[in-house]
Amino acid sequence: MRQLRTHVQVNDMLKGIPKIISPELLKVLCEMGHGDRLCIGDGNFPAESVGKNSIVIRADGNGCAEMLEAVLKLFPLDRHVEKSVFLMELTEGDVGKVKTPIWDEFARIVSEADDRGAGTIGSFERFEFYEEAKKCYCVIATGESALYGNVIIQKGVI
Amino acid sequence: MRQLRTHVQVNDMLKGIPKIISPELLKVLCEMGHGDRLCIGDGNFPAESVGKNSIVIRADGNGCAEMLEAVLKLFPLDRHVEKSVFLMELTEGDVGKVKTPIWDEFARIVSEADDRGAGTIGSFERFEFYEEAKKCYCVIATGESALYGNVIIQKGVI
Repeated sequence: MRQLRTHVQVNDMLKGIPKIISPELLKVLCEMGHGDRLCIGDGNFPAESVGKNSIVIRADGNGCAEMLEAVLKLFPLDRHVEKSVFLMELTEGDVGKVKTPIWDEFARIVSEADDRGAGTIGSFERFEFYEEAKKCYCVIATGESALYGNVIIQKGVI
Repeated sequence: MRQLRTHVQVNDMLKGIPKIISPELLKVLCEMGHGDRLCIGDGNFPAESVGKNSIVIRADGNGCAEMLEAVLKLFPLDRHVEKSVFLMELTEGDVGKVKTPIWDEFARIVSEADDRGAGTIGSFERFEFYEEAKKCYCVIATGESALYGNVIIQKGVI
């Protein structure tokens, strides 16, 4: 779905709402307040178990980069903290072996949405990321195939 | 999402399951029995109102052709009836004005899944289609932008 990453398609049911944002997700994004966090998980992320005590929204067939880009059209990142976007760090065994080009896409998307750019992107070790994801208001389960294509974002104010 | 229409990507969580089929949809497809019908609605289809007494599954960001192709990898069409696939006919005002290239994609996909090919494809007038959709076991709400990109399929036996 690469070409989706070059622009955000608009929903057929509402004006100006990105196409891949479901009614449930639109409601959840609106419910979230300052400091609340949202996790966007890739196709291998244990979204349903990590999110079993919060809200899990399915986005099967969609990618994390497209979803992040769409969400950030509506969702302000938190400017009261240095880091408002968090990636999952490579596990020891994957360092030097697994490439993470999707991180470059995340950085581009964050830079387009927030003038702090990649400077607001932090990271958590894998199991720490899971613990932080459990505290998120919502976990979006995408079908992203890119490894380490998970991201947590923290909501700011308009 | 054109290139998705050329092949079916596989789910990251289960072997051999098309990527755009959510866990809920997989469960529903398995629950359905002989003669049960499934409606796949496009981005403008009133899926939530038509399906308010059945099951509505969101597939935002996905197209009807991709969804039909993915569903038919698992779902057998009914061979006990002549027509097991139904399109929505153009309304009087759209005849001769609106093109429906997605119907060609539907025909190709049905032909790949069933040796009766396009011969098993029928149609309903718009409001008749809505009434038939209300009787479906499930309505899938896709983000398909193509006009008249709605389809109802009837389940057969393996």
